[in-house]
Amino acid sequence: MRRSVDVGKLLSGDRVAIARAISVVENGEPDARSLLRSVFARTGRGYRIGITGPPGAGKSTITSRLAGYYRARGHGVGIIAVDPTSPFSGGALLGDRVRMADVESDAGVYIRSMASRGSLGGLSRKAVEAADVLDAAGKEIIIMETVGVGQSELDIAGAADTTIVVLVPESGDSIQAMKAGLMEIADFFVLNKADRAGAEQAVLSIRMILHFREPAPWSPAVLTATANTGEGIDTIASCIGDHRAHLENTGELTRRRRARIARRIGELVSETLRVDFWSPEREGMLEDRMDAVMTMASSPYDVADELIDNFKSR
Amino acid sequence: MRRSVDVGKLLSGDRVAIARAISVVENGEPDARSLLRSVFARTGRGYRIGITGPPGAGKSTITSRLAGYYRARGHGVGIIAVDPTSPFSGGALLGDRVRMADVESDAGVYIRSMASRGSLGGLSRKAVEAADVLDAAGKEIIIMETVGVGQSELDIAGAADTTIVVLVPESGDSIQAMKAGLMEIADFFVLNKADRAGAEQAVLSIRMILHFREPAPWSPAVLTATANTGEGIDTIASCIGDHRAHLENTGELTRRRRARIARRIGELVSETLRVDFWSPEREGMLEDRMDAVMTMASSPYDVADELIDNFKSR
Repeated sequence: MRRSVDVGKLLSGDRVAIARAISVVENGEPDARSLLRSVFARTGRGYRIGITGPPGAGKSTITSRLAGYYRARGHGVGIIAVDPTSPFSGGALLGDRVRMADVESDAGVYIRSMASRGSLGGLSRKAVEAADVLDAAGKEIIIMETVGVGQSELDIAGAADTTIVVLVPESGDSIQAMKAGLMEIADFFVLNKADRAGAEQAVLSIRMILHFREPAPWSPAVLTATANTGEGIDTIASCIGDHRAHLENTGELTRRRRARIARRIGELVSETLRVDFWSPEREGMLEDRMDAVMTMASSPYDVADELIDNFKSR
Repeated sequence: MRRSVDVGKLLSGDRVAIARAISVVENGEPDARSLLRSVFARTGRGYRIGITGPPGAGKSTITSRLAGYYRARGHGVGIIAVDPTSPFSGGALLGDRVRMADVESDAGVYIRSMASRGSLGGLSRKAVEAADVLDAAGKEIIIMETVGVGQSELDIAGAADTTIVVLVPESGDSIQAMKAGLMEIADFFVLNKADRAGAEQAVLSIRMILHFREPAPWSPAVLTATANTGEGIDTIASCIGDHRAHLENTGELTRRRRARIARRIGELVSETLRVDFWSPEREGMLEDRMDAVMTMASSPYDVADELIDNFKSR
């Protein structure tokens, strides 16, 4: 029943073809790699914006407003939401279901949520592949919305040209977490819900932490917004434009994309090796040796060596 | 200048030998694997407790108090702190430097901090290896303290027998983040600083989210504590004891440890394959092909295939 993707239609921006292509990628269907290979030459034109931050910070609302901003200027927009608690992905449990009323019905905006299905593993790679699909389909602006500040989110941040960290006055934990080596992912910060109590203090806390950052050619600004009313969105878009110009003028955009592609090749290699390695035969060998390891008659190191020797002898 | 580890002394619990062995592991020295292989048969007796939560939640204070609790009962205690903002690892930037005055001077407690050095990658594996060293050295209780709820922390939680998530009344973001598929790592919760405003509300929020959890043989409790005064520590220790009894009685402890060791073998295999693969020759091939990829004359998929073919032909 699985239909193959019409690549011609995909490249022309057809919504049905885009939807089908992202499903192929998301489900890891057998032809995912050949599809991505065939559209790769058409990628590299879309500008990728990463939006991350804790649940409830208003990332979806900012994403929606930014999409509206770019649409009003005639750009095609693609959105990948990988936040399991996001209203896009239907994962909101207690929070309000914010709707992207303004842009959901706009044919120039393609929105796709990607669910974590209980595990964040592999999701960041799939999200980046989905962004490649949108890029090849001609979307000039691609927004990748992700929750949190964990490893998966760092991976996605590494896949964006500009990364925005959204916080709210209540984000005490997240502001503290920035000290834990995570602040380097932000090209700038947005303190959303800036009409609430504690906003000024939160901005000061972020600035104080940024003060300890190593000097760099680009200094992350701390913007404020009230995305619900649209307040601050133009400034965010303008800051994205400034950052893009900075990356282009310094050659950093090309360097980032090159590093990203090299990393991607490394992932493709690891994945292929892993699939090749874990044949039913070696899966069986592992299971078979586990009893000896559990009684300390063998060790994980001995078993790994034996499996590797078996792999190399084939 | 590097001295090798005296394994006999390590197994007898000698502090200098422990310190040296953990350094070998942390720095990834050439003899790390042979050291771990030689002590593996002596592991499996230490009970591993994971303590995680946002920065500033008081994890270090709880760790310190728990260590005191177990010492008072005659147990040897080892502590691995992988929180880059932890006072143990010297990463505290703005927070108070809490000292473990009671236990730092106790020869029966070995405390080791592991810094992230700007990257969380690989740290969780090293922390688990360090726990193996402490286990082999005869520590009956091993506490692994980690910050946050990202992928690395999930990895470390997967390496503990009992995992405790510590939150404070201000942990709004973290409580929200639990909805994002992260609540399953907690065997129980501790709301620390329970004398502060909002404590009751926070406990209710956690319970409300737990309400959505799938029914399971073990239901995570939500305890309260004021670690600074020692309030609640006995209850935490008693809950750890209950959980341990539950794991032992249901056979779950053996299942968890078996799964953990199988996962470890998988990691050892991946690491060996990666080192084998990225020879200077193939590193050079990758660098060489990147120009063609950047001009779209080739694709990441073509380059990965070529590298794999080269690897297989050797």
